[in-house]
Amino acid sequence: MNYEFSDRLKNLQGNAIREIFKLLSQPGVISFAGGFPAKETLPVAEIKDITNRILDENGAEILQYGGTEGYYPLIESSCEYVKRDGIVATPDKTLVISGGQQGIDLTFKAFINKGDRILVENPTYLACLHILKTYEGEAIGVDSDEDGINIVDLAKKLVLYSPKILYLVPNFSNPTGKTLSVEKRQAVYELCKKHGCIILEDNPYGEIRFSGNRVPAIKSFDRDGIVIYITSFSKVISPGLRTGIAVASPEIIRKLTIGKQAADVHTASLSQAIVDRYLREGRIDPHLKEIVPVYKMKKDAMHDAIGKYMPEGIRFTDPDGGLFIFAEFARKGVNTDEIFKDVVEKTGCAYVPGSSFYADGKTFNALRLNYSNATPAEIEKGIKALGGYFTKLLED
Amino acid sequence: MNYEFSDRLKNLQGNAIREIFKLLSQPGVISFAGGFPAKETLPVAEIKDITNRILDENGAEILQYGGTEGYYPLIESSCEYVKRDGIVATPDKTLVISGGQQGIDLTFKAFINKGDRILVENPTYLACLHILKTYEGEAIGVDSDEDGINIVDLAKKLVLYSPKILYLVPNFSNPTGKTLSVEKRQAVYELCKKHGCIILEDNPYGEIRFSGNRVPAIKSFDRDGIVIYITSFSKVISPGLRTGIAVASPEIIRKLTIGKQAADVHTASLSQAIVDRYLREGRIDPHLKEIVPVYKMKKDAMHDAIGKYMPEGIRFTDPDGGLFIFAEFARKGVNTDEIFKDVVEKTGCAYVPGSSFYADGKTFNALRLNYSNATPAEIEKGIKALGGYFTKLLED
Repeated sequence: MNYEFSDRLKNLQGNAIREIFKLLSQPGVISFAGGFPAKETLPVAEIKDITNRILDENGAEILQYGGTEGYYPLIESSCEYVKRDGIVATPDKTLVISGGQQGIDLTFKAFINKGDRILVENPTYLACLHILKTYEGEAIGVDSDEDGINIVDLAKKLVLYSPKILYLVPNFSNPTGKTLSVEKRQAVYELCKKHGCIILEDNPYGEIRFSGNRVPAIKSFDRDGIVIYITSFSKVISPGLRTGIAVASPEIIRKLTIGKQAADVHTASLSQAIVDRYLREGRIDPHLKEIVPVYKMKKDAMHDAIGKYMPEGIRFTDPDGGLFIFAEFARKGVNTDEIFKDVVEKTGCAYVPGSSFYADGKTFNALRLNYSNATPAEIEKGIKALGGYFTKLLED
Repeated sequence: MNYEFSDRLKNLQGNAIREIFKLLSQPGVISFAGGFPAKETLPVAEIKDITNRILDENGAEILQYGGTEGYYPLIESSCEYVKRDGIVATPDKTLVISGGQQGIDLTFKAFINKGDRILVENPTYLACLHILKTYEGEAIGVDSDEDGINIVDLAKKLVLYSPKILYLVPNFSNPTGKTLSVEKRQAVYELCKKHGCIILEDNPYGEIRFSGNRVPAIKSFDRDGIVIYITSFSKVISPGLRTGIAVASPEIIRKLTIGKQAADVHTASLSQAIVDRYLREGRIDPHLKEIVPVYKMKKDAMHDAIGKYMPEGIRFTDPDGGLFIFAEFARKGVNTDEIFKDVVEKTGCAYVPGSSFYADGKTFNALRLNYSNATPAEIEKGIKALGGYFTKLLED
């Protein structure tokens, strides 16, 4: 049958990263393409212990249907959790979501009509661009500096495009690893407030900080109900549980909840209860103390290998946290999409081509490297191989 | 701030049932309003045992990100599971979803543009109507007979409205409890095929059959790739796990997968692994043997109490399975929305007003009763109280 798919999906392909994952499942390939937390940081034994107690004490409730808003104990413990970002949340301002990404989907569902515009830092999280396409919205890229989004360009584009939403990952951005300075956070808030633009503040990586000082969330300045703050437990506990939190004004939370009711009724209750107990039992800080050095060690391994093996003519970011290093070739002719297959074949090593992260999909001289899902030895070996390839490429 | 919500959500309220749930949380109220499985049927001990083995044997994989298509072992065991409905599924035709309802959402996401029409049996599952509103589609009701949707009216409306989708719950429909006969299933299939209309066959209750014989799924006739079959493990294992399965042509599954990637990346892996082992270890049939008599006993209790306490002038369905009895007042003036609050106050007992289940939302003389979530004593007490109220109402 010749299916008449909807306008929103008929030309949409899978997002680049999830498609790349499939290509890379062969053994032997060193993948810097993912965004997985380091598997050695997943707290299997703790979760087993917690799950046994949940099912012993509260099994029938946890296996039954729950409310769309979320498992009430988790709503409470999440309000406590987000205090570390300077956020004052109450249950009416809080919604449990099925992973941080659902928060982006629900926000666009609640705000975006076909043709509506959003602003994103250029480059930005590719799933945000992908989700926006399913709502037939348009993403406009805003220039980015060392310390995050460029305020002059933001001011200009707020006027020029009347965007409904500004999407930002202020801590250790995906893909660049950059962090937005506190001064810029305040400036972003004031500018968006002035122009009636909602800020969607996505913070999946904030707790994975291995240098520098914590910066308060943009949401912590929010006296006007214009910021939707999303955080996820994927990088600090487990992504397989698909559990995150959105914090916004009660009116926005009610709309997100109606959207979620239609999407998946509620987040898996066992996942919610596991995250709740993990937080409530004070396990998160000792766990972070254990796992953050693992990320630091891997980032250092990649940074050192870049220094040793990468040629002049490629600029790399050096993040204070998170999972990613971003690279840009100075020479404009380099096309990281075109060389991708050849790179994988010749080096046994993969990255994500940069074009996926740009609003217009047309910047080809960049790439993203993930360091969390490889060993230091693999990182050394992989960066050496990539360095060799790129050195030759730039000599040609 | 004065939020500019999207057209799809700006006028949408929460679905009636989930709003009613909130009202009914006071202790002492006997609720026939839910659609929860009987809590005594939830296999807590088995799930605890299974979860321990999953985390011991496979913990890091299960806590890590997974593929959007689903946990591969569950895809395999689901292909085996749907054979009981006469369906031949292969992994490329199968998608794990976050509860059966997500299958409706993803189908509409893949097919429905603003203004597109779907056909539904009148009355139908209210979440289907609610989800459709989030895609700005239009639902057209088709008449219903004792044995399900009216074929003459269906044929007429396929021509009149050129619908993209026909949505049906062929086994123990929500809200009526009716089952579509095999002859009608074949007729529905042929008619929809002729008119190029996709059939969305939703089967959450099929395994909860306590009388009559199993009828093959419409999907079992599908040689043309026009049927999307959804089933859920909510009623046979646990709703809190939020896990179901969609089976459709590979081309449709690819589109649903792209939609799901944007929605929640993947279904919670621990939930998926629990369901997989439950199926793979052959636990489902012994479990059904235990739980189906519980539902039969409760349905019988409600049916008997209706015979004893309900006045003439209300017609009740008598289902062969599932969770619901549907009631219609012969007298047209009765408005089950208007009397709802008074009924709850005077009888301590709640139902779902029928209007929520009709495509036009304007049929007020009906109501839905759920029997799975009360004890036989509560059912007797509640129906007696409701019967008294309705007797008086019809005498006035």
